[in-house]
Amino acid sequence: MSLLENLQWRYATKKYDPTKKVAQEDVDKIVEAARLAPTSSGLQQFRVIIITDQELKDKIVPIAWGQEIVAECSHLLVFAAWDRYTEERIDEIYNRTTDERGLPRGRFESYTDKLKAAYLPQSAEENFIHTARQAYIGFGLAIAQAAEQKVDCTPMEGFTTEELDELLDLKSKGLKSVTMLPLGYRDNDGDWLASMKKVRNPKEEFVMEF
Amino acid sequence: MSLLENLQWRYATKKYDPTKKVAQEDVDKIVEAARLAPTSSGLQQFRVIIITDQELKDKIVPIAWGQEIVAECSHLLVFAAWDRYTEERIDEIYNRTTDERGLPRGRFESYTDKLKAAYLPQSAEENFIHTARQAYIGFGLAIAQAAEQKVDCTPMEGFTTEELDELLDLKSKGLKSVTMLPLGYRDNDGDWLASMKKVRNPKEEFVMEF
Repeated sequence: MSLLENLQWRYATKKYDPTKKVAQEDVDKIVEAARLAPTSSGLQQFRVIIITDQELKDKIVPIAWGQEIVAECSHLLVFAAWDRYTEERIDEIYNRTTDERGLPRGRFESYTDKLKAAYLPQSAEENFIHTARQAYIGFGLAIAQAAEQKVDCTPMEGFTTEELDELLDLKSKGLKSVTMLPLGYRDNDGDWLASMKKVRNPKEEFVMEF
Repeated sequence: MSLLENLQWRYATKKYDPTKKVAQEDVDKIVEAARLAPTSSGLQQFRVIIITDQELKDKIVPIAWGQEIVAECSHLLVFAAWDRYTEERIDEIYNRTTDERGLPRGRFESYTDKLKAAYLPQSAEENFIHTARQAYIGFGLAIAQAAEQKVDCTPMEGFTTEELDELLDLKSKGLKSVTMLPLGYRDNDGDWLASMKKVRNPKEEFVMEF
């Protein structure tokens, strides 16, 4: 099926069949789509956390404002972005890039100097506005890949990020949570949204042309 | 080809063949992927602007810090998000949703009341941090769809958003530009990046598991 067909197939699943688990191979592909996502200056400012431990998923229910799907899903993905830019983070990926391409380290130095001059004087809050945006590109591609695997998912922002960061000890890793993506298989009978028509603004309202 | 193969195929094109134009059918599919993107509470907080007018594209070069690709590309897409939430905007999409699903208007009133209570007291700046994030989901899916059509593209944040907003008169539409996406066909000989290895953090660094 094409991407457009997959996007028509998917919906924000509201109820999972707790007996059905997603195969590791499918989870791997979903995470791989996020890993391959383009990001600003190629810095890959986000990471994905995969949670299958039931006790931990249960602890996240109150953090997700009582939404039971985070416990009932097969796998819970958390997308978390850099809490701020640092010189080391910028250098690390560009050193990797030059090494893997067989180029001398420092080949992109004038470019990374520009990045550092742009981001390092900003506050952590300003940095995070930018890094979090990048996580949404990977988030979108993971949603698309799940649909290709015919795995259901629920794009979620409804949780208290600070509490999740503390539970997962993300601060020590220099990360802050941005979104969650439960994965699993829809409970067709228990999900009121499963049979509902997908609604979007029509093309003539969505698009402007010059 | 699968989404993962398409993501491996694509790269941030640095030089376009100015003689090759993207077919309307391909552009339509790329925009359709963005239109079908999931967004927070289904509000579809962003729009896509398609620019083919050469004079207008030329005017965007200095706004894009001298990057000629915005003039040389076949089609220039601009992703723009709501400058702020309003009661009308929230009601409009939920009225559309109930109408298209044959439900009574107001069916989701307790939910839209919650959205209004959350977003309307915020500043326009806080609102835009959230609406802009949604644009990145559609941006990611448009990039994936372009790759499926074997259309090259260049994800771009490098431009002065205020100047582009003024040129396109986005303020009067309650929108602010977020990203740009030139579309076209790579100039293999002129693009230094075309033959370079794609570099990402390895899976073991990108993923954490609990």
